[in-house]
Amino acid sequence: MKTLITNTLILPMTGEGHTIRGDIGIDGNQIVFVGKGDPAFGADRIIDGSRHLTMPSLVNAHTHLAMVLMRNFKDGLPTLQAWLDEIFPIEDTLTAEDIYIACRLGIAELIQSGVTTFCDMYFHPSATIQAVSESGIRANLGLTLFGDGESSRKRIAERQAELLAARCHPSGRITLSVAPHAIYTCTTETYQIAHRWAADHDALLHTHLSETKEEVDRCRASYGLTPLSYLRSIGVTDSVKCLFAHGVHLTDGEVDLLGDLDCAIVHNPSSNLKLNCGIAPVASYRRRGLTVALGTDGASSNNNLNMVEELHLASLLGRLGSSLSAYEAVSMATIDGARALGLQDRIGTLESGKEADLIMVGLDKAHLTPLNDPISAIAYSAQSSDVDTVICQGKILMENRRLTGYDIDELIATTNARWAAILQR
Amino acid sequence: MKTLITNTLILPMTGEGHTIRGDIGIDGNQIVFVGKGDPAFGADRIIDGSRHLTMPSLVNAHTHLAMVLMRNFKDGLPTLQAWLDEIFPIEDTLTAEDIYIACRLGIAELIQSGVTTFCDMYFHPSATIQAVSESGIRANLGLTLFGDGESSRKRIAERQAELLAARCHPSGRITLSVAPHAIYTCTTETYQIAHRWAADHDALLHTHLSETKEEVDRCRASYGLTPLSYLRSIGVTDSVKCLFAHGVHLTDGEVDLLGDLDCAIVHNPSSNLKLNCGIAPVASYRRRGLTVALGTDGASSNNNLNMVEELHLASLLGRLGSSLSAYEAVSMATIDGARALGLQDRIGTLESGKEADLIMVGLDKAHLTPLNDPISAIAYSAQSSDVDTVICQGKILMENRRLTGYDIDELIATTNARWAAILQR
Repeated sequence: MKTLITNTLILPMTGEGHTIRGDIGIDGNQIVFVGKGDPAFGADRIIDGSRHLTMPSLVNAHTHLAMVLMRNFKDGLPTLQAWLDEIFPIEDTLTAEDIYIACRLGIAELIQSGVTTFCDMYFHPSATIQAVSESGIRANLGLTLFGDGESSRKRIAERQAELLAARCHPSGRITLSVAPHAIYTCTTETYQIAHRWAADHDALLHTHLSETKEEVDRCRASYGLTPLSYLRSIGVTDSVKCLFAHGVHLTDGEVDLLGDLDCAIVHNPSSNLKLNCGIAPVASYRRRGLTVALGTDGASSNNNLNMVEELHLASLLGRLGSSLSAYEAVSMATIDGARALGLQDRIGTLESGKEADLIMVGLDKAHLTPLNDPISAIAYSAQSSDVDTVICQGKILMENRRLTGYDIDELIATTNARWAAILQR
Repeated sequence: MKTLITNTLILPMTGEGHTIRGDIGIDGNQIVFVGKGDPAFGADRIIDGSRHLTMPSLVNAHTHLAMVLMRNFKDGLPTLQAWLDEIFPIEDTLTAEDIYIACRLGIAELIQSGVTTFCDMYFHPSATIQAVSESGIRANLGLTLFGDGESSRKRIAERQAELLAARCHPSGRITLSVAPHAIYTCTTETYQIAHRWAADHDALLHTHLSETKEEVDRCRASYGLTPLSYLRSIGVTDSVKCLFAHGVHLTDGEVDLLGDLDCAIVHNPSSNLKLNCGIAPVASYRRRGLTVALGTDGASSNNNLNMVEELHLASLLGRLGSSLSAYEAVSMATIDGARALGLQDRIGTLESGKEADLIMVGLDKAHLTPLNDPISAIAYSAQSSDVDTVICQGKILMENRRLTGYDIDELIATTNARWAAILQR
């Protein structure tokens, strides 16, 4: 299948301030040209892009997808710990089928805000694999670990086969991480088991890091070290690529150390505000050479999976006491998200040879008029409902706001019924 | 015309946690019942509300509507002053017709995010009056003053007749303020002239206050007083209702003083972040008894007029180091906005006897599933595109996302053409 998007305003994310008016050719799952068209291309399908801005689709680099079930539930608690104390007992009752139902809804929500890649940390990966496989979007799925070495070995034994098999699917849409939850929920041995698994299986190591001041204080009290220094001391950061979610309370020394590692920070500004964790100084991290991606965290602490909103929030917060540019903010949601997940050679920009993951943003809106600077418009003015068309690996997942793979009313009814049943358990 | 909204989830904003499933009856411009229907009502028009949340429409308590023209224009400047230095020369060229065109687009944008009342400070009020009169929405319009006493007297002489006449329109949709721009752009005499005009004409006094630390420092250097103390010392706060936009950098003493005055603070969190002004501690202001409303500021420093997004941002920022509840945040965007403008007896809640200003938020969305707590859903999950239907004084301004009074493509084309012409001047 050859697809041609014509006469569109292209934001390729290949350099600050760079936009092009032109065509984009997609052959199968690949971009074959950007800008100047090829008269001999012979498209099977032509999409008029003249009233759209076309850009790389968004990367949600940290979420717990199935937590959509707990959206707007037990809000208003003053601390992360108080909220976790409410959420954990419900999570203990969730089945693989619950997770599958929730993931389908979550994926629909992701696509509706322009996301085609997400990085997940949760339970029952078989359910998430099934939902992702059916969906057409990409995911980095975590083998999530909690507790001590014994329970981690058991989880790995139960789950690694299905995850490793999912990675082998010819689409290449699923990549892997091992995801020890956090220092305050995992033992040293669990982190070391996770590290070995990541190294053995060429997977990322994805963990929560320095989300709250309390976490840092507890780590110092337990181990005499700040969280990153502790992970470093037990070998967790050696020779594996790490994805650190949050990074709100890093010391200057830790930021220097991160600069020497193969790693990225995932900024989750909505969650960090809502759970009163703080504002990660990500503009400063970027100045110091770190890769900073963007995530929504789970919908229960956000309370949605709206990456356009997250991008907007990151753009605004990045101006406070700092000078994050609109282009940098959009980078965090696209190419730097790809880089954080090790996918920068496949996605994250619009360039010939990359896989065709892109979105078309409708510009005929009062709130985008006049457009003036297109990059500012994406960072500061756009809404997720402006994303009209979403393409992943050349396949249309949403066209003119209509999801091609889901009946949204069915998803809503199924999810509501299941959540009601969960609350009755 | 009698309108009946049936079987809807009602968020009346009359008390924390209070929702009702029921009907709303509207007779002419008034709400006649909320909750339990009246079998003898005899509606001319019935709206099925079963898949919607119905709540008071939103109040945008501080904007410069016509600045939509300068949306996403000259972004990226490090300070408010640097940005004003770019914007003021363009503003000097704007004509009444430019303002009229911009206001029409701005009003369409406001309605699309559920706003039916806005408070404006800008030039050429005749143009804004015309746009508001045609639109069906409400506005508090400012007689905007800059500079010294002589220029203020001249502006008043030129403009007061049309503003006072507009207020007399039988719809009562237009109310008035006098709006000396800021301490750093107006002389003491201008503020005193403004105060006299507000007192003589029963109007609000609307001004920027303590938006930046630099403003506070300059005020101290010029007058030996902080901004509010200075205004108090020259009599500006005596016996008139004041609307203070921003209030980011208030001293404890000023907050105490505000508690003794008939006034409100308007929180503009997007603008305050984007222009690196700071985060106003509004949860603390509320605890100390102040009325806090919410505004978008101009679209050039935001960069849109999306009040649902502003409410979402205020909700999240209010959790940081504080505990603003979702209900409080929604109050700021509804009843407290009405209170700030002196309209609390007419709008801001859904109650029998109030004027019928309300919005219907579509709930059949992935990002609102499960709904769980409806107030959290409005504060944290909803998007402006969820606002399906907007009613002001009983008149439908938008129904199922379709504006009843505007052709949006015409508005966009007209605004783009005019802005291109302005840039050529």
